[in-house]
Amino acid sequence: MPACDPKGPLMPLRLATRDPDFDTRFASLLAMKREVSEEVNDVVRAIGHDVVARGDAAVIEYTAKFDKLMLTPATLRVTPEEIAAAVAACDPRTLDALRLAADRIRAYHERQKPKDDRFTDALGVELGYRWTAIEAVGLYVPGGTAAYPSSVLMNAVPAKVAGCPRVVMVVPAPGGTLNPLVLAAAELAGVDEIYRIGGAQAIFALAHGTETIRPVAKIMGPGNAYVAAAKKQVFGTVGIDMIAGPSEVLVIADGTANPDWIAADLLAQAEHDAAAQSLLITDDAALGAAVEAAVTRQLATLPRAEIAGASWRDYGAVIEVETLDEAVPLADRIAAEHLEIIAADGDALAGRIRNAGAIFLGGHTPEAIGDYVGGSNHVLPTARSARFSSGLGVLDYMKRTSILKCGPDQLRALGPAAIALGEAEGLAAHARSVAIRMNLGG
Amino acid sequence: MPACDPKGPLMPLRLATRDPDFDTRFASLLAMKREVSEEVNDVVRAIGHDVVARGDAAVIEYTAKFDKLMLTPATLRVTPEEIAAAVAACDPRTLDALRLAADRIRAYHERQKPKDDRFTDALGVELGYRWTAIEAVGLYVPGGTAAYPSSVLMNAVPAKVAGCPRVVMVVPAPGGTLNPLVLAAAELAGVDEIYRIGGAQAIFALAHGTETIRPVAKIMGPGNAYVAAAKKQVFGTVGIDMIAGPSEVLVIADGTANPDWIAADLLAQAEHDAAAQSLLITDDAALGAAVEAAVTRQLATLPRAEIAGASWRDYGAVIEVETLDEAVPLADRIAAEHLEIIAADGDALAGRIRNAGAIFLGGHTPEAIGDYVGGSNHVLPTARSARFSSGLGVLDYMKRTSILKCGPDQLRALGPAAIALGEAEGLAAHARSVAIRMNLGG
Repeated sequence: MPACDPKGPLMPLRLATRDPDFDTRFASLLAMKREVSEEVNDVVRAIGHDVVARGDAAVIEYTAKFDKLMLTPATLRVTPEEIAAAVAACDPRTLDALRLAADRIRAYHERQKPKDDRFTDALGVELGYRWTAIEAVGLYVPGGTAAYPSSVLMNAVPAKVAGCPRVVMVVPAPGGTLNPLVLAAAELAGVDEIYRIGGAQAIFALAHGTETIRPVAKIMGPGNAYVAAAKKQVFGTVGIDMIAGPSEVLVIADGTANPDWIAADLLAQAEHDAAAQSLLITDDAALGAAVEAAVTRQLATLPRAEIAGASWRDYGAVIEVETLDEAVPLADRIAAEHLEIIAADGDALAGRIRNAGAIFLGGHTPEAIGDYVGGSNHVLPTARSARFSSGLGVLDYMKRTSILKCGPDQLRALGPAAIALGEAEGLAAHARSVAIRMNLGG
Repeated sequence: MPACDPKGPLMPLRLATRDPDFDTRFASLLAMKREVSEEVNDVVRAIGHDVVARGDAAVIEYTAKFDKLMLTPATLRVTPEEIAAAVAACDPRTLDALRLAADRIRAYHERQKPKDDRFTDALGVELGYRWTAIEAVGLYVPGGTAAYPSSVLMNAVPAKVAGCPRVVMVVPAPGGTLNPLVLAAAELAGVDEIYRIGGAQAIFALAHGTETIRPVAKIMGPGNAYVAAAKKQVFGTVGIDMIAGPSEVLVIADGTANPDWIAADLLAQAEHDAAAQSLLITDDAALGAAVEAAVTRQLATLPRAEIAGASWRDYGAVIEVETLDEAVPLADRIAAEHLEIIAADGDALAGRIRNAGAIFLGGHTPEAIGDYVGGSNHVLPTARSARFSSGLGVLDYMKRTSILKCGPDQLRALGPAAIALGEAEGLAAHARSVAIRMNLGG
């Protein structure tokens, strides 16, 4: 990544659909790799073998090495007293904000709870399915600056709404320090156990269990390259959520939009990460130019200007279209994690777009509202994966079991077809398991 | 895998909860690796690079090499005439069975279609989410003996119920031969395009597209080690379904059950694969012994006796419990793909078990009914993954987009909390994107 000079020109890519080379340049924009994949698999595999073999002792050694923190089996777990002290140490205004966020996230996700289905069909076959919560879920929370209390809420609240009886959080405490707001968020969300460990060793401890930490069935939450590699390695033994990439926003706007507001939203995305991506599609060239100027102006007073500036310069783009109709297929190909639509007929436009993680409608819905207090989940599909996947929700903490029940009459009605198909597929024992119940021999 | 002598003693593992070493032996049973993982990643990666670089030409070359079939871009796709000829060549009785299966699968999955949600909360914030179908889905169908028309229905029918506009099937045609029933099933399910290619090259063609095959957004369906490795490698570029392992059944039965029927069901599972697993838990030692004897008897007349016998000997188990209450936690730890319950109070017992892919209730519901004509899906979580995942369903072909809309009043109500949290997380541009709209500066 080239170093960013915040005083130099920070120009995003500029495209227009009328350009003769638009298709090629747009395809290049889509194909941009924004992630440096680190090869850490071997290191992580060795940590995994060690944690499986030696349990607590291995976890404690890696924590001493990587987090400069000496633990014992008795001090792995964060105590209720520490959690209470952390809550007491938080700024009350921030705690109130966290409480509002938790309440709104809970209310939104309650509506996602799926219904069981049980019915009897015309033949008398009883059919259906039922949803059950995953019995134990692990939640990884990064340490240091990436420890976001809002992300604790976004991951843990839906788990509890789903009804998971055991939600276990791991969070590294480098040098012994834990972010009090992270503990407060865990408390608000109803997390059941918290361990002060991180890195690949924490993932393997959650997946395989140790003397102190009982294993979980699924592991959620973001982390660095080591954590991501460990999650991939334990997948199968446990479930995992998606591996999140750098964040992105696409703003679709017409001339009615306020360029300063759009610039602020583009920078809110860009400040996450130099590999974040902020895109604007507009049918108004003057708006595009005004947004670019406002970005430059606002960058000057932004604490994280270096990161945001690099993101805007390296991955930002302003795409001019002839009409907003042209924006629809482009937005579907971009499949943005966050899609803001600020246009006269925004709601209708939103209805025509298939691929987006979340849609923010109108000038008064900055994406940051959704990050914190809208109620919907801020864990959303990145890197064009909104083409085939959804944001985090209650269903990610549940699973469905199908149910089937025949009596003798139903078996008689369906049996011959099952026998025919079993025979056609060369599976004689399948056919016989039906026939034997119909007194057709076996 | 040791060779199986169908005339030799084929004894499954025998456990009883009263044994002093039960916990250890049960844990070993759970930890059994039933899959030989082949290291094919490098070969598959090379195929992938080649298909991305050379498109159709590479796919055609690999098809000539692996399937002994010479194709051109014009003959990659199976024609409507070929499909019609295949349907005409099928045994009418089997076609009728396939039609019954398709209709029942469609009816069952129609009920899984999720509802959108859109509501306005007490503050006036508009919230909700909407479900959309994935725009294009690829379906891998293995060639040769593993080409199961029932699996085509199980994968393709829910895609069309979900509303996927484009369902693309690939199926290898070794030496030019295609299974007519597979084509008939595709036709019944409404598959839109069929290409006569297979292996890793088919997966890369679906994920990245070629001159002839437009790319899809998600790839489903089982395959050999090369196909599985290719699916893992394209994951991220496209979505994939789970990677299925060997099949398994757990039967929980009391003394009311018919041992011959249970034996037939255990063998129906075992005939799939020498690595399949058939388990029985019973509170009746006499039933356990009778089932074992019936398995031996039935094996003698089974065409796939060698496979089924090896599976039963190497991975089968009969577990004796004192009461069926003890079966509940054991079943939850096994988390079987298929769970049959044949017991006096079977429905109540089923209600107490959390982890299973599918439950088959009562003596007249052999699992094979669910494989073909029950209506529920036969693509189910294997290898204990029913602890955290579900069988295939309509939701696997859709994704959810969340929607948020604030006006000035709602932004004023929620803004201060969002600003507080943005500041607490050190994300000043997030805070500013809200403040700038509230005239709180920027």
